[in-house]
Amino acid sequence: MYSHEIEIILSNKKIRPGDRIKISKGNIVFEGILMPRPDIGDNSILVIKLDNGYNIGIRYTANTRINKINAARSKFAFPQAEVKSNASLPNVALVSTGGTIESRVDYATGGVYMLVKPEELLYEVPELSTIANISISAPMSIASEDMTYKGWQTIASEVANAFDKGARGVVITHGTDTMHYTSSILSFMLQKLPGPVVITGAQRSGDRGSSDAFMNLICSMRMAAKGEVGEVGICMHGSMSDTFCDFIRGTKARKMHTSRRDAFKSISKKPIARISTDGKIEYISEFTKPSNGKLELRTGYEPKVALIKFYPNSDPAIIDYYVSKEYKGIIIEGTGLGHVAIAPKPKEYSWLSHVKSAVDSGLIVGVTSQCIYGRVNSSVYRNLRLLSGAGAIHCEDMLPETALVKLGFLLGNYTKTEAEKMLNKNLVGEITSRTETDLLI
Amino acid sequence: MYSHEIEIILSNKKIRPGDRIKISKGNIVFEGILMPRPDIGDNSILVIKLDNGYNIGIRYTANTRINKINAARSKFAFPQAEVKSNASLPNVALVSTGGTIESRVDYATGGVYMLVKPEELLYEVPELSTIANISISAPMSIASEDMTYKGWQTIASEVANAFDKGARGVVITHGTDTMHYTSSILSFMLQKLPGPVVITGAQRSGDRGSSDAFMNLICSMRMAAKGEVGEVGICMHGSMSDTFCDFIRGTKARKMHTSRRDAFKSISKKPIARISTDGKIEYISEFTKPSNGKLELRTGYEPKVALIKFYPNSDPAIIDYYVSKEYKGIIIEGTGLGHVAIAPKPKEYSWLSHVKSAVDSGLIVGVTSQCIYGRVNSSVYRNLRLLSGAGAIHCEDMLPETALVKLGFLLGNYTKTEAEKMLNKNLVGEITSRTETDLLI
Repeated sequence: MYSHEIEIILSNKKIRPGDRIKISKGNIVFEGILMPRPDIGDNSILVIKLDNGYNIGIRYTANTRINKINAARSKFAFPQAEVKSNASLPNVALVSTGGTIESRVDYATGGVYMLVKPEELLYEVPELSTIANISISAPMSIASEDMTYKGWQTIASEVANAFDKGARGVVITHGTDTMHYTSSILSFMLQKLPGPVVITGAQRSGDRGSSDAFMNLICSMRMAAKGEVGEVGICMHGSMSDTFCDFIRGTKARKMHTSRRDAFKSISKKPIARISTDGKIEYISEFTKPSNGKLELRTGYEPKVALIKFYPNSDPAIIDYYVSKEYKGIIIEGTGLGHVAIAPKPKEYSWLSHVKSAVDSGLIVGVTSQCIYGRVNSSVYRNLRLLSGAGAIHCEDMLPETALVKLGFLLGNYTKTEAEKMLNKNLVGEITSRTETDLLI
Repeated sequence: MYSHEIEIILSNKKIRPGDRIKISKGNIVFEGILMPRPDIGDNSILVIKLDNGYNIGIRYTANTRINKINAARSKFAFPQAEVKSNASLPNVALVSTGGTIESRVDYATGGVYMLVKPEELLYEVPELSTIANISISAPMSIASEDMTYKGWQTIASEVANAFDKGARGVVITHGTDTMHYTSSILSFMLQKLPGPVVITGAQRSGDRGSSDAFMNLICSMRMAAKGEVGEVGICMHGSMSDTFCDFIRGTKARKMHTSRRDAFKSISKKPIARISTDGKIEYISEFTKPSNGKLELRTGYEPKVALIKFYPNSDPAIIDYYVSKEYKGIIIEGTGLGHVAIAPKPKEYSWLSHVKSAVDSGLIVGVTSQCIYGRVNSSVYRNLRLLSGAGAIHCEDMLPETALVKLGFLLGNYTKTEAEKMLNKNLVGEITSRTETDLLI
């Protein structure tokens, strides 16, 4: 709700959120859609959405005048695009799962709703049909924070199915929040890929002036249609401007900003390729070529794996909790090179005996770093060697999120003994070889 | 252990780790200290530490020759520096707490041990005595992963005491792993500072050729001796080269790399200042000036606050666990703009009712983002509004680690009602005003 004073004026003029209004303050005039007041913040500030997609806040003062121009539009209703076939173009499957890329702002509430039909994307971005013959499936339409391993299994099977039916590449549209968890698990579930699997989305919905949806879709479609890569990767804006997208290895990608369009970064490794808006694909780091053999699909997943972040004063009994809940594995996000408290005062905060007890109970315990960038080590400091001695496995330069889903994948498809051996060995590029300070001849 | 073949040669030649040896392979000759073999890795590779401080691995093959030069040196024993007084220089207190900056490699084990006496630092960096009159205290000597709130309270009191005794600035040496947790809590515990509190450390110990210890100490001492800042900050390498250090606001700093010397980054805000090796201090973003009034010391801390990271398939019952353990507050590291699962399938993974139940039980629940960069929001998407409706407080652009220690600080010094109001209001620069996309006139 706006302030009582503003609400009275709006009520008198029959203005409601969603209506197009004009606000003047002396000589300055703004025109746009009145947005509902966010729950938090100064309620004497009117918020309108300008035609360029940006929101602007205007403080209501004695010289502020408000006038209605039009009543609220109803929800968008895009006509469905016809999907035309063109035999001269490569076949690409578009697997739609939901997220902001398929959403639009609902001017009646100021919130965002799902488009539902992925065909509407083709209507909005007709250029896609000039890049590939596109077949569309929509196994789900969800916000990505609601994604679970059941969704991962469905998407993996859908992708395998698309390659079976002759696709040379696949584009998956997905919410950005957990996109890197999905890109990571698909990298393990789908091995020996005959072509690229390109996951994309949008940080800002398509009806905003600054939306990244269209460029991300076009670059992703180009990568799927002609990229010579046999990996799962994320393709999103590579900079704050609209000049290129990066294609980042699925196990090395991470969402590093809540709102910027170039939120996804390739961690401790360069992106695989850079895709320009003019269609050029520049390969900038090593990657796996498409496989000539049969795609290997493994959809097993053990959801009883936990990711625990260590921090000062953190309760080590949380490990016992997961043991009591019959978890099969734990990934610890340690500090620095992979540390947890070993000899703190008070000593009740020491993690050592709890880790040992979890390992003795049969759980696999992996260690990663909350630094995000860099590599953990099991031997530089005494505390690291003690943790390693308790049976914890330091996971090299694997991201915590990647280590988590890899552990769930391993426990879902292999024996515990195999999983234990494979956790810190490279399978699909999630672990890279040593660099910089330690030379090897 | 090295391979059996290597161990036999070493045994025959009476060579032990720590000894200085010469290794030749054909025409190539290396000389250095034999390091013990790390637990993990190829055991047919000999590792020696070169005189430049770097380790090098040399694969043992048929043409490899090994010869002993000297037996291992014993541990370093630095003479203690005399602390000379110079009335023309500003008074700076050096509070030593431990960490790599006070450590040296133990050539007998390949591990790292603590120097113990901070006076040894002055012996190694005599330049420090030309910058300030230094008084030293060493309330603890620990690895920073072993730091707890008891240590924070001790350090805060030590700093307040130093200012009382006439220091114009304070330098704290600290392990890097949890340095940003300490810088954050000290920013809250020590308000209205009469001068800078500069936390520093080292990513590589002082006996390595690439050590950052000395330059970090010198830049920190310069900031403490002449910086016109009334804030707690971290002063460490600002780039991969030895050209400048950054002074980063304590509540906005984060260790972002496991091993690089420029591991600490200022998140979603520029560093406060850049300190060149020539002593120049360049202020590059807004900050708080030294206070003329009395320093406000509040050392209360409620350790029953938890940081929980949300991820796909994560068990929401973890919230109930902390409620049952009588925790007083929880900070959630959500995805993106501050999301948790609301309507997942299977629905047992939904966090909504658990968050509501925690709030109803009297806990304060804050929401931050695991993206690290950017700001959370409570209103863009329906799932966010539902989470907010359940009583969770979105914490603006506060880092998860900062939100955690701020909540412990608030609950340790104020009533619950006050703490709830203060959590997402700026106290010491931990929350900055809106930028970029949302203009405000």
